[in-house]
Amino acid sequence: MKKAVELHKDEYLEELKEYLSIPSISSSPDHKEDVKKAAVWTADALKNAGMENVEVVPTEGHPIVYGEWLHAEDKPTILIYGHYDVQPEDPVDLWETPPFEPVVRDGKIYARGATDDKGQLFIHIKAVELLMKEKGELPVNVKFVIEGEEEVASPNLGPFINDHQDKLSCDAVVISDTSFSDKNQPAICTSLRGALAMELTIDTADSDLHSGTYGGGVPNSIHALVKLLASFHDNNGKIAVEGFYEGVPEPTEDVRREIAALPFDEEETKKGLGLDALYGEEGFSFKERTGIRPTLEVNGITGGFQGEGLKTIVPKEAGAKISCRLVGEQDPQRVYEAIEHHVRKYKPQGARVSLQQYIKADPVAIDSSNPFIQAAASAYEDIYQVRPLFPKEGGSIPIVEVFGRVLDAPVVLMGFGLPSENLHAPNEHFHIENFTKGIETMCRYLHKL
Amino acid sequence: MKKAVELHKDEYLEELKEYLSIPSISSSPDHKEDVKKAAVWTADALKNAGMENVEVVPTEGHPIVYGEWLHAEDKPTILIYGHYDVQPEDPVDLWETPPFEPVVRDGKIYARGATDDKGQLFIHIKAVELLMKEKGELPVNVKFVIEGEEEVASPNLGPFINDHQDKLSCDAVVISDTSFSDKNQPAICTSLRGALAMELTIDTADSDLHSGTYGGGVPNSIHALVKLLASFHDNNGKIAVEGFYEGVPEPTEDVRREIAALPFDEEETKKGLGLDALYGEEGFSFKERTGIRPTLEVNGITGGFQGEGLKTIVPKEAGAKISCRLVGEQDPQRVYEAIEHHVRKYKPQGARVSLQQYIKADPVAIDSSNPFIQAAASAYEDIYQVRPLFPKEGGSIPIVEVFGRVLDAPVVLMGFGLPSENLHAPNEHFHIENFTKGIETMCRYLHKL
Repeated sequence: MKKAVELHKDEYLEELKEYLSIPSISSSPDHKEDVKKAAVWTADALKNAGMENVEVVPTEGHPIVYGEWLHAEDKPTILIYGHYDVQPEDPVDLWETPPFEPVVRDGKIYARGATDDKGQLFIHIKAVELLMKEKGELPVNVKFVIEGEEEVASPNLGPFINDHQDKLSCDAVVISDTSFSDKNQPAICTSLRGALAMELTIDTADSDLHSGTYGGGVPNSIHALVKLLASFHDNNGKIAVEGFYEGVPEPTEDVRREIAALPFDEEETKKGLGLDALYGEEGFSFKERTGIRPTLEVNGITGGFQGEGLKTIVPKEAGAKISCRLVGEQDPQRVYEAIEHHVRKYKPQGARVSLQQYIKADPVAIDSSNPFIQAAASAYEDIYQVRPLFPKEGGSIPIVEVFGRVLDAPVVLMGFGLPSENLHAPNEHFHIENFTKGIETMCRYLHKL
Repeated sequence: MKKAVELHKDEYLEELKEYLSIPSISSSPDHKEDVKKAAVWTADALKNAGMENVEVVPTEGHPIVYGEWLHAEDKPTILIYGHYDVQPEDPVDLWETPPFEPVVRDGKIYARGATDDKGQLFIHIKAVELLMKEKGELPVNVKFVIEGEEEVASPNLGPFINDHQDKLSCDAVVISDTSFSDKNQPAICTSLRGALAMELTIDTADSDLHSGTYGGGVPNSIHALVKLLASFHDNNGKIAVEGFYEGVPEPTEDVRREIAALPFDEEETKKGLGLDALYGEEGFSFKERTGIRPTLEVNGITGGFQGEGLKTIVPKEAGAKISCRLVGEQDPQRVYEAIEHHVRKYKPQGARVSLQQYIKADPVAIDSSNPFIQAAASAYEDIYQVRPLFPKEGGSIPIVEVFGRVLDAPVVLMGFGLPSENLHAPNEHFHIENFTKGIETMCRYLHKL
């Protein structure tokens, strides 16, 4: 199969470039048509790969693309999930080449969506296409469910799965939207943090006020905001919201040992990210902090005058975007309520506060002894000559929990990205070697099932 | 003179509208040509008023407009200062009518610069024009110095005054860039707070990082910024920067009594500004907080993702614009150094901090017993039938201190604005009654000298 992949490599890359050039930013209303265009492109790619009953299913948001091939009688059925939408490109001035003009440099393809998730998703499409073209059939039954709202927390996919349980029934769900542990170390993720996001707005006055005339005598919305945001963490990196840690398991010695065994080089990490120091919750290592501990991060702040130079005002309004990563038995709704309570309790005098919830997703834990996961591990080992690790990932894929629960099937998180590939950041890229080896690995996997 | 003003009122208003329609925003490089246009317009207005030796003097920034009439032998010379530049218009969507399309509504003229300072400055130009046209001469010698950089802290006017001490020598400096105490209560300001402004930037990493992969394990520039900004004030509204209050006088009982006598209605103020509560330094009244106490205000913050929806990043960079109002013997440079020391001392782990200073201006106190001020008070009383108050203003006009010191002349701050006229805010306006009565007051004043 390696030869076949090599033979088609350039052709596949050209197709991937075309896919990546569509700015399918799901969070931006301005890109609605682009997202639709990417959906149609995905559907065409599935048809071209020999999938049947391919549909672009409209939803209240962006469409879901479905396709299937169900002629492997008495063989298991796998459902492959991926997403064709991407993160916003900003800050666009930090990209070395434009985010939606894909280029290949040093064995990597650079573009928004290269690794998250168009590139990884395309591995699956090309794997089934190759098998179909070589043999005219697949060794297992395959269903594709590809959405365009992963980056906005999949508001319409959950209802779709709930409404189509029979159509989507399967023996395992396969998703490639995670990463290797390290350059040469494949990984099958066995734990995902849950997620919760919200927007906090503070206002004090009807309009910005002259800081000379009113400064010192009226509440300042930014002062109120920074006091409130600063109160979310204590000085040891712990989250200071009462009730936040409810449901967070104390890590056992076994878990800590398992995590300590994962590859991690502090100096290299700092250097690679341009950090002077790592930082986080006291008493935990970097891998623990990012893998099994919950977080509360402010993702953005805005308020007052932001132009060139200065404007001496007391700003009337300020706001922040906040998101949490959740673990163990943390309940997103209860965590949200704890934060809401904290905000009401500590809101400074004269500040009017509003809190708006965006997304919530439960944390997920997956048993790695499952045969579908063990088969995946074996496929990786065949192609990469190294046994994959089973790390606990810090990220969230909100729909994973829904797939597992509603379809009652194990979820196999076969990542082909690398942690260094700048996902959600400027200069996102994907290693072409993992694209081609990924196709080989998937072909091998489907045969093993 | 009242009749003459009434006769020309409509014509003057049309001219003022033309003046206000020039978007002479000095802080914006995009408006450099507009600022120049306003300078030329100002010079033409001076020529038209009969001023001689009118010049548009280029500087490293925006031009200074000069004009004079020096034929009143053995009479005093007054120097009239004003500024033809204006504040930025944003947030532009909160303006009821466009900021640079002046309109008259309910006896007020609405536009950016209406009260600060084009409208007030125009009073002086029209007063001398009227006197010149009626009598062919003025009762005193007059020099005009009108700058285009007041809203960016007059970087080039100080050197200009220093370099032209003979040319600018005078018996008094008259400035109309302040306010009445209240609608029917004229005021001559006898104290101005000093000013200091700076920009604080914090960065942590080379790029924004995925909050799932790295969240909880790396420093977050916004967390660092809000901790630092929150540390500037304690929970009683006092500024918690060591050494900040050095040189701030403890108010005497006399001063407190004088301030307490100024008109102030807390409920009306709150209602007018849309505030739930006033807020400030414990142990001081609103009028004290805004008149004789120093402040440290965050005027703007920015950082991370600010678009629609959400982006789950750990932001690499965040920043704030900060300004202070200073009083008494506070030295702007020492206050800046105290803040710099505070920032270095309390900067959170992993945060790289940079601080850039914008402006500094010394506080000013003026003796109200000066005859030029007493004559001004008498002119107000003749026109408004009420004796003006001598309040201590919270604002800063950095150049006032320089005028007083370098030219060794008393500064007469004859305001014609109202505190409610939204200066530096959307829907800035100027009461036409004070425009016309202002012209009458100035004519009376020049005669009294």
